[in-house]
Amino acid sequence: MATLVLAPIGSIAALLFAFFLIKSVMKQDEGTDEMKKISLAVRKGANAYLKRQYTGVGLFFAVMFVILLILAFAGHLTFFVPFAFLTGGFFSGLSGFIGMRVATNANARTANACRSGLNKGLRIAFNSGAVMGLVVVGLGLLDVSIWFYLLYWFYTSVQGISPTDPVLYQNITSAMLTFGMGASSMALFARVGGGIFTKAADVGADLVGKVEAGIPEDDPRNPAVIADNVGDNVGDVAGMGADLYESYVGSIVSSSALAVAAGLGLQGIIVPMTMAAVGVLASIIGTFFVRSGEQATQSVLLKALRRGTYGSSIIIAVISFFLVRYALGMERIGVYFAILAGLVAGNLIGFCTEYFTSDTYPPTQNLAKTSETGPATIIIGGLSLGMLSTAIPVLIVAVAVLVSFFASGGGASFETGLYGVAISAVGMLSTLGITLATDAYGPIADNAGGIAEMAHLPEEVRERTDALDSLGNTTAATGKGFAIGSAALTALALIAAYSDEIKNIAAKNNMVLDLNTSILNPPVLVGLFIGGMLPFLFSALTMQAVGRAAQGIVMEVRRQFREIKGLMEGTAEADYATCVDICTKAAQKEMILPALIAIIAPIVVGLILGVNGVVGMLAGAAVTGFVMAVMMANAGGAWDNAKKHIEAGNLGGKGSDQHKAAVVGDTVGDPFKDTSGPSINILIKLLSMVSIVFASFILSNSIF
Amino acid sequence: MATLVLAPIGSIAALLFAFFLIKSVMKQDEGTDEMKKISLAVRKGANAYLKRQYTGVGLFFAVMFVILLILAFAGHLTFFVPFAFLTGGFFSGLSGFIGMRVATNANARTANACRSGLNKGLRIAFNSGAVMGLVVVGLGLLDVSIWFYLLYWFYTSVQGISPTDPVLYQNITSAMLTFGMGASSMALFARVGGGIFTKAADVGADLVGKVEAGIPEDDPRNPAVIADNVGDNVGDVAGMGADLYESYVGSIVSSSALAVAAGLGLQGIIVPMTMAAVGVLASIIGTFFVRSGEQATQSVLLKALRRGTYGSSIIIAVISFFLVRYALGMERIGVYFAILAGLVAGNLIGFCTEYFTSDTYPPTQNLAKTSETGPATIIIGGLSLGMLSTAIPVLIVAVAVLVSFFASGGGASFETGLYGVAISAVGMLSTLGITLATDAYGPIADNAGGIAEMAHLPEEVRERTDALDSLGNTTAATGKGFAIGSAALTALALIAAYSDEIKNIAAKNNMVLDLNTSILNPPVLVGLFIGGMLPFLFSALTMQAVGRAAQGIVMEVRRQFREIKGLMEGTAEADYATCVDICTKAAQKEMILPALIAIIAPIVVGLILGVNGVVGMLAGAAVTGFVMAVMMANAGGAWDNAKKHIEAGNLGGKGSDQHKAAVVGDTVGDPFKDTSGPSINILIKLLSMVSIVFASFILSNSIF
Repeated sequence: MATLVLAPIGSIAALLFAFFLIKSVMKQDEGTDEMKKISLAVRKGANAYLKRQYTGVGLFFAVMFVILLILAFAGHLTFFVPFAFLTGGFFSGLSGFIGMRVATNANARTANACRSGLNKGLRIAFNSGAVMGLVVVGLGLLDVSIWFYLLYWFYTSVQGISPTDPVLYQNITSAMLTFGMGASSMALFARVGGGIFTKAADVGADLVGKVEAGIPEDDPRNPAVIADNVGDNVGDVAGMGADLYESYVGSIVSSSALAVAAGLGLQGIIVPMTMAAVGVLASIIGTFFVRSGEQATQSVLLKALRRGTYGSSIIIAVISFFLVRYALGMERIGVYFAILAGLVAGNLIGFCTEYFTSDTYPPTQNLAKTSETGPATIIIGGLSLGMLSTAIPVLIVAVAVLVSFFASGGGASFETGLYGVAISAVGMLSTLGITLATDAYGPIADNAGGIAEMAHLPEEVRERTDALDSLGNTTAATGKGFAIGSAALTALALIAAYSDEIKNIAAKNNMVLDLNTSILNPPVLVGLFIGGMLPFLFSALTMQAVGRAAQGIVMEVRRQFREIKGLMEGTAEADYATCVDICTKAAQKEMILPALIAIIAPIVVGLILGVNGVVGMLAGAAVTGFVMAVMMANAGGAWDNAKKHIEAGNLGGKGSDQHKAAVVGDTVGDPFKDTSGPSINILIKLLSMVSIVFASFILSNSIF
Repeated sequence: MATLVLAPIGSIAALLFAFFLIKSVMKQDEGTDEMKKISLAVRKGANAYLKRQYTGVGLFFAVMFVILLILAFAGHLTFFVPFAFLTGGFFSGLSGFIGMRVATNANARTANACRSGLNKGLRIAFNSGAVMGLVVVGLGLLDVSIWFYLLYWFYTSVQGISPTDPVLYQNITSAMLTFGMGASSMALFARVGGGIFTKAADVGADLVGKVEAGIPEDDPRNPAVIADNVGDNVGDVAGMGADLYESYVGSIVSSSALAVAAGLGLQGIIVPMTMAAVGVLASIIGTFFVRSGEQATQSVLLKALRRGTYGSSIIIAVISFFLVRYALGMERIGVYFAILAGLVAGNLIGFCTEYFTSDTYPPTQNLAKTSETGPATIIIGGLSLGMLSTAIPVLIVAVAVLVSFFASGGGASFETGLYGVAISAVGMLSTLGITLATDAYGPIADNAGGIAEMAHLPEEVRERTDALDSLGNTTAATGKGFAIGSAALTALALIAAYSDEIKNIAAKNNMVLDLNTSILNPPVLVGLFIGGMLPFLFSALTMQAVGRAAQGIVMEVRRQFREIKGLMEGTAEADYATCVDICTKAAQKEMILPALIAIIAPIVVGLILGVNGVVGMLAGAAVTGFVMAVMMANAGGAWDNAKKHIEAGNLGGKGSDQHKAAVVGDTVGDPFKDTSGPSINILIKLLSMVSIVFASFILSNSIF
């Protein structure tokens, strides 16, 4: 029990270090007045968006709070759940908010630092990204710790359960398991809303600015340019943060619950909680490895970032051996291999994503060549590249699942094996503090480039920010691989935790439980089909939403070009705020339907097909969701980089027909990689979370 | 037992009527010398392709025959299997061959008939399509009947098993179950090879002819024009025929096997076999409903075809009630509702496909509008339309599965319920004779249009063939919905039959079987992921194959334009044969890898993950395969018709920027709807078939 104190300590260490990083970033100079002005506009837009988003989401949380209260009164939940739902949502939102605040403050500072040198720019952008990573793990661990101690106190002191009674830990983990729903809901809104915002602005700005008016990217005459920069922050920073916050919390609470199911009790809970704390420490140390010389090439910069993540991984790999040995003893040292499997799988998937999407490797180079026969062939090429790229990650996850299951003793005890699978998700996410840093760093560098362009800084500054930005694309691809891989493993752990929770509820209420999760059982099979379809439906809705919202931006930009005299000549200023406003409104409106589907589907499927159908649905969604998310992320990334490859002067370069074809590919890839794809990660976890929260209700009311 | 004689009778009736239809078609005049010449060129190309394909496939069959013989010697299979494998492949190939022979003879005759009137053209095209439908059901039923009687004779007369002993029927159905693999393998080659051929020719011809040289479709100056017409026949006729042949046979043999598992014995086998015979009768009657007046509009023509399919459906719905009552008695009349569920589901999925892909409904009209902002938006629009359109078919299949399972008594006996699911697939496919007719009719009308254009027939003839062709697109969409829906149901029946077969083998050999098909069992879960990924991998490979083959055609057409003097002026003739040859070679080469994956995957997964992993893999492939196939078929169909909608004079009409964007969509859709999408149907059945054939081998040699 004393070891557990490492969790809150780790949490506070992460938050303190983040605070220290914020201070160090804010000390830097924002540069010229023009840079300050642009940065302020982006900041204001991002804040306006988040304010609106939190208002809408607040309403949703209020309604869900009441529903959960009613379920609690009906005896389907403990009274902790509605409140834990709120804290999960609050902390998830808060980590996105802080990360974005820092990012929007760091963009001009990064651009300004690039005026004096590359290393300084890298440090500022990376440190700001690290804030995001550390805040996510810090707040996630804080939320979990607070509730653990609170529940421990309640069940031992108020209800008088003995600390040695296994029922105590069952009660605690069972309650904690339901907490993830708040984080997942918030994450879904952040990802879907942010994703729609950022791609509507991006696509809209490109369609009119680049294609119709023929002005370059980030040109201040384009009225959608500020919205585009705001989008990078609300989508890629705040959305990504909320996404990984919930994976992080989900993996910890599900492995804790499975620890109890496996009969490992408190010792089994200690592993994921302290693993997370160790991960924080390793991530903080890792940030110090990230620095480069002044004349750094892209590969040197990449090595600098890699030193950070690999260094942290190695630290974790070493310490967690002793942790498992201490907590579970040498006879359960197999759990250590589950952790290793997760760690290695995460890095491998990340590398695989990079292989398929970076133009230093053949797949993207070949994709760029398909532009020679026009847009149709580059679209076919990108889609098949994306589909092809799903094979390796699936096999990696397959091996990771089998290794963690059997190494942890799944051959002898099924539950212990499932605990191993959940622990491998924790292992994969243990480096989150630093992997998220390398990921959130990308949009900051991207913004810095935009500011350099808009503020007419010298060519060399833009070159430096471009180097940082281009690197950001690579690390973003790796980060996406991580996010998808961890989402899949967490989803599996949550499914196992769900079926365990069902058994607990049935046992507590003396219900006869007909739990037959065989694939051949028709409700399971039908659930599998419905679940398998959900990621397609979800992607369709989010892609259509981007299309509609982008259409709105196109109209508005055309209107401004037409009506504002002197805009094209640079003598009048564009009305940036209206574009931000259109994106904000569209994102808020369009995110409702996909979110409702994610919340209603498990309840309806549960009521009609029963818990077996729900298990089928969760598995179906996890399978197609994982494959689709990889496909969309990699196709989108490859199109983006194929375009950049051509813009770098290959195959005819900028302005050629090849380039035009590649722009079509990139535009199709935008909602793939930044809206629909990442949202699927959250969908598959949220479905599980909703199922868990409504488990007791479904058990009492389902038809089958 | 006496009732069973209906099956061979039905089979012979189908073949006789097909023979009669062939005679009546061949009596017609082929028209002018020019028409004869073109038709001959197409015929020669198609024959050359099939000859080459059968040579390559023959090699594959020889190798597999030896492998199966070895397995039989090792005691893993009965000695019937290698021979049945050959007959399945032979009959499947034969039905494709006959259908294609008639189609390539009917194209000029249809065009010629259109010179005198629309109704006559419709009759010839439709009757030729009906030959395909009737040959498929006739040969399928013949193959199944021959083997049933042969095995019955062998086990009763040679081995002396009593006709009242349930073991007799278990032996018969267990052997018959393995027969499908021959049909499935042949179907895969036909679909993949034909699909690559047709789309390579189509895409290649369009990219150079329409886009670069600016000459219209079907222009005789385009060297790829004959290859394009050949492709319609080898892909859409022969490929489709082989595909549905194996669905048809698969549904009959799997429901027979499940009948025995459910303890229904011979009576349970009678239902699918005689149902099929009833379907033949109903289809023959249905063909007489298809006729129209001379001044028919498209909706009148559609009604004529609908009369045929709906009329047949009603006949089957009525007769099968008495059939079930007679064979299984009133206490099992619920099986009748399983048949109805299949019939209704098939028609509903067909209608749903039509709704999403016909430009008389909003989805395709709206898709056409997205062309206004360029190719990127129409691609995003088509992909999201395709994804969105998966929801309803999934729900239809879900309801059909649940209804047939529970109506057949699945609540009381699990096996009886699974028998019901298999029977619903038979119900859906019972109208195959006529639904396939309305489907195979499309490419014939398409070819007729091509010949009318190339032979410079008067405008009114082309108008009539266009009316027939346009209708063909609608019925092809419906046919595709049918093919996908029946593939999904058949795949489910095969999975159930597989798990049943495993139990039989284990019982016979006194093996301890650890059959745990729970989704939570890691080998199942991992199998699910791998299976879910296979359709993506498979689609990637087939799409890339089309891209590469099309590239070859582009080079060749460009070469001919450059080197053959007078070609563009119409004074010299193009070298059509070389293009046909390039497509043929490419198709043969490119179909190997996807086919190998389909055959090797179940064996490798089985050896590593055991039978539980195989069940997971089959279910995963069925789920994502079904959703992907619907997505690809509907996205492709909608893009095709959106382009036609614009060409009909909407949104700027031919030659406008909107039209150019729509052509990009159509080109992307080509491999979607005619290569990758349809091939997935076969993939998911072939995986099951291979698993069944190798079941005993896997049981003895797997690691887990």
